[in-house]
Amino acid sequence: MTEAIPDALRVPPGPVDLASIETDAAPGFDGKKKKGKGALFALGDELADLQERLWAEGTTGSERRVLLVLQGMDTSGKGGVLRHALGLVDPQGVRITSFKAPTEEELEHDFLWRIERGLPKAGFIGVFDRSHYEDVLIAKVRGFADEEEIERRYGAINDFEARLVGEGTTIIKCMLHVSAEEQRSRLLRRLDKPDKHYKFNPGDLDERKKWADYQAAYETAIERTNSEAAPWHVVPADKKWFRNLAVAQLLLHTLRGLDLTWPKADFDVEEQKRRLADEKPPA
Amino acid sequence: MTEAIPDALRVPPGPVDLASIETDAAPGFDGKKKKGKGALFALGDELADLQERLWAEGTTGSERRVLLVLQGMDTSGKGGVLRHALGLVDPQGVRITSFKAPTEEELEHDFLWRIERGLPKAGFIGVFDRSHYEDVLIAKVRGFADEEEIERRYGAINDFEARLVGEGTTIIKCMLHVSAEEQRSRLLRRLDKPDKHYKFNPGDLDERKKWADYQAAYETAIERTNSEAAPWHVVPADKKWFRNLAVAQLLLHTLRGLDLTWPKADFDVEEQKRRLADEKPPA
Repeated sequence: MTEAIPDALRVPPGPVDLASIETDAAPGFDGKKKKGKGALFALGDELADLQERLWAEGTTGSERRVLLVLQGMDTSGKGGVLRHALGLVDPQGVRITSFKAPTEEELEHDFLWRIERGLPKAGFIGVFDRSHYEDVLIAKVRGFADEEEIERRYGAINDFEARLVGEGTTIIKCMLHVSAEEQRSRLLRRLDKPDKHYKFNPGDLDERKKWADYQAAYETAIERTNSEAAPWHVVPADKKWFRNLAVAQLLLHTLRGLDLTWPKADFDVEEQKRRLADEKPPA
Repeated sequence: MTEAIPDALRVPPGPVDLASIETDAAPGFDGKKKKGKGALFALGDELADLQERLWAEGTTGSERRVLLVLQGMDTSGKGGVLRHALGLVDPQGVRITSFKAPTEEELEHDFLWRIERGLPKAGFIGVFDRSHYEDVLIAKVRGFADEEEIERRYGAINDFEARLVGEGTTIIKCMLHVSAEEQRSRLLRRLDKPDKHYKFNPGDLDERKKWADYQAAYETAIERTNSEAAPWHVVPADKKWFRNLAVAQLLLHTLRGLDLTWPKADFDVEEQKRRLADEKPPA
């Protein structure tokens, strides 16, 4: 029912035109909100099972791990994805890293330094809430780095991601794609609710003025880093239920593709059962 | 309905006798499995709300955070607590740190060095899956440190925890208390299920032979570190549903005690609404 979603979201190679991708669509899914929420719930058991297999592998020497990169404009729902999609699996096996404005120490290093430190260990599903892509998005729009440096970074990102993939990481990159109009209504909702004021920052409205520049920066970044090893997905995110379902389905699709099997015992199971049966019960 | 649990689990000052604390009881709760599962579910909304308040505070300069320390014999269910109790709140606001056998680098430092590095940041609920207590439990039972060093560590732990509390951390310490018989049946179940073999290690049966030594080490550790600032709770853990409910209730009780309020906006809300209303829509 949801199997068609990953292919429908995959960005084909070549130039990217975000305006041509509808933000309130539900590509690959035939249904509305209620059915979509049911479909997300229905993924839970398999997702949890596969995540535990990945984890189990990690405890027995496998180097495999998954890295989910979440990017998107403010209010696009990275937090919602974390709660509703990642919330379906064992929190022990998930490592979330949020990248804010870099600290002074981080600025003293290359932009990938802090990213390295946030990578998931073997067996984990790592999630980046924002990522090294900020270094070619906000950094470009706000001019924190010059053109030449931004150019260098596209290449550095491709090399970096290729290395991770070579080492056993499967990378899922998602841009949560909202419309400016939807962002406006989400920002207004934050302003209307005192318990959401903490999420609002007047600077968000200054960033919003640069909407077109951000879209252009995303288009270039996605095009330049849409590698075979680590391809991009654009997730229409005006419909929260679809956004959550889509990311969960991408994760499920990825885990299925790993052919995860339960590690074989490296001990004699029957012998251990006998040991337990024969023991003098501990006091 | 579950409000009596925290007091019922709190270890009073003085010598500790684990044998006198029933492992299959449900102290402070009047009901069985079905009611207990319902009660856990019923805590979810308030727990999630309070966790978000803690998080919101953290984004606006508060130093407060919570640290849940989970200790217990193998199979006592630390992982189950993470899934079923911590799973009720936003995974973004939870930081889980699992402490395994120390690495070579960790061994080159004082035992609290790696603990410091795993502490939650402001606004987070940190969970230690095992902790610095291993350094006075397995370290004592297996003789990794001599008596004098173990003695030093009780004091160092008290100083350390008092410092954390002084800096804004609320500490909840739980020993998940299972019986040797219940451990046996859980180990047998692991051996019976090929998809749980990865959790089994023949060494677990060697540790099990030292059951009495471990119980004694727990008793001493709890007595010596059962401070006002960071008191201990013994959570009967033979009933998984009660174990999960009890830890969730302890967490809820703790968060309630923090009187968490939504941060006030440090900007003029109406002005920001006008800015959004007046803007030329971004292209």
